[in-house]
Amino acid sequence: MKVALVGIGKIARDQHVPALAASGDWELAATVSRAGTVEGVEAYTDFAAMLAARPDIPMVSLCLPPMPRFAYAEAALKAGRHVMLEKPPGATLAEVHALEALAAAQGLTLYATWHSRMAEAVAAAKAWLSDRVVRRAHITWREDVRKWHPGQDWVFEPGGMGVFDPGINALSILTEILPAPVHVTAATLEFPENRDTPIAAQITFSGGVSADFDWRQEGPQTWDIEVETDKGPMALRMGGNRLEIGGVEAGGVNSIMGEYPALYAQMAALVRAGRSDVDLSPMVHVADALTLGKRVVTAPFHF
Amino acid sequence: MKVALVGIGKIARDQHVPALAASGDWELAATVSRAGTVEGVEAYTDFAAMLAARPDIPMVSLCLPPMPRFAYAEAALKAGRHVMLEKPPGATLAEVHALEALAAAQGLTLYATWHSRMAEAVAAAKAWLSDRVVRRAHITWREDVRKWHPGQDWVFEPGGMGVFDPGINALSILTEILPAPVHVTAATLEFPENRDTPIAAQITFSGGVSADFDWRQEGPQTWDIEVETDKGPMALRMGGNRLEIGGVEAGGVNSIMGEYPALYAQMAALVRAGRSDVDLSPMVHVADALTLGKRVVTAPFHF
Repeated sequence: MKVALVGIGKIARDQHVPALAASGDWELAATVSRAGTVEGVEAYTDFAAMLAARPDIPMVSLCLPPMPRFAYAEAALKAGRHVMLEKPPGATLAEVHALEALAAAQGLTLYATWHSRMAEAVAAAKAWLSDRVVRRAHITWREDVRKWHPGQDWVFEPGGMGVFDPGINALSILTEILPAPVHVTAATLEFPENRDTPIAAQITFSGGVSADFDWRQEGPQTWDIEVETDKGPMALRMGGNRLEIGGVEAGGVNSIMGEYPALYAQMAALVRAGRSDVDLSPMVHVADALTLGKRVVTAPFHF
Repeated sequence: MKVALVGIGKIARDQHVPALAASGDWELAATVSRAGTVEGVEAYTDFAAMLAARPDIPMVSLCLPPMPRFAYAEAALKAGRHVMLEKPPGATLAEVHALEALAAAQGLTLYATWHSRMAEAVAAAKAWLSDRVVRRAHITWREDVRKWHPGQDWVFEPGGMGVFDPGINALSILTEILPAPVHVTAATLEFPENRDTPIAAQITFSGGVSADFDWRQEGPQTWDIEVETDKGPMALRMGGNRLEIGGVEAGGVNSIMGEYPALYAQMAALVRAGRSDVDLSPMVHVADALTLGKRVVTAPFHF
């Protein structure tokens, strides 16, 4: 099946293009981007022009930033194309609800992807937790925004989510593996004095769960979820790719490169089954933290 | 049917107690409050004690502030009582989703009330708009926080929602009357430099819809929704209680005193039908505005 990839930036080059090149389900047939192109693939700069010229492409994968994404997704669904959304699936919850209703009305697949849920050890962690009682869980998600979003000012603009852009990956794993749902009960949000979104956040959830998100970590990066249960501790490290049980390595890989191939395989399965998959629970936690968080102003941030 | 009223503050005295006194469905059988009481009604200060002592009371109406509300609602549902929630139904979306699941599992009624939807002219406005195309709509919701929440610091604390506490009333009407849903596309949030929640907000939605919320309006108060359609203008004034069509008065009342009696009548109907009613769309718009809003710091606010 042919796919058009929209938004040829860092995440497209790092993940989507290699995943599509290795896919047995999908063929990258067109790109749409103001400036980016992929060698050997027909390149458009105008989305409407691509939709009009290429009725043979049944699926559009959107990896442009969240703020403009809704307009593209709506146009693609109205033009009869299945749609795959990078995370977060939109700038607001209401716009994704609207897309979900539109996809259902059109009989099309909408897939709100969460790439970290496809990390190597997530399914094993979920299975291990399924018959255990969670006493406490703590997320530590500390990375260097200069390394992962070099010069990308949009992450600090309204709608860019700030440190919740990586943090939502942790929340997508948390909401997948916990045997019972939790909700935010308190949060502290650190806003750089020259920016509109937080650079760090400490969140308390019900059920003994907490999270520490920070975008100022230089040197080694940390993407850990540590869980204490009635039958001992479990940890996910490397963004869900490595599993530890009782403090001992229990499998996984030291790579995140399996996540996007798994997303595209799942999209193929959804299209074939005529189903959608839109789980907004990670984004609900972000909205809840931003709704009830205490705001603290911190040092200005410059790339 | 007997009801216990929890949180005997301003809204309980102004609205809930008179509505229950006039109700043919409900009898106010107990109150729970740290300090407030209602003359002639058995008063508890401890919620668990009331639940244990009064198994004859099948319904609990919660009108305490949103931050502590979840714990009360969860305890009531676990104790087998139907629950009615003041607006907003919680401090987070996720906690209300959890309550909804719990009520369904328990076979109990959960009613997330929106009193402004019961305003006199809302149903007529919805019917009038149902076969029209909305070109533009503008909400003006400007009131004096000192008049409506005298000394209530909790409205400015994290989770208190700030100016969205009244603004969500407008959004509950908007989401009820519009023939097609809209979503927030931009917002400016004015935070007093000594407070954690906004005192004013300007919101842009899709579909030509906008809102102006302000809690600093002295003198006459404004609660208007003005809509331009393909067949002329319509306006709701007085918080949805008066209707204007084509610039001419078209019915309604100059009072908000019909809203809470209508909520309690609806709760009785839901309990009898064994159904719940939990529509979070007004709260989703608030969370979305707080997620993607641009933050502006404004003058400190003191009661």
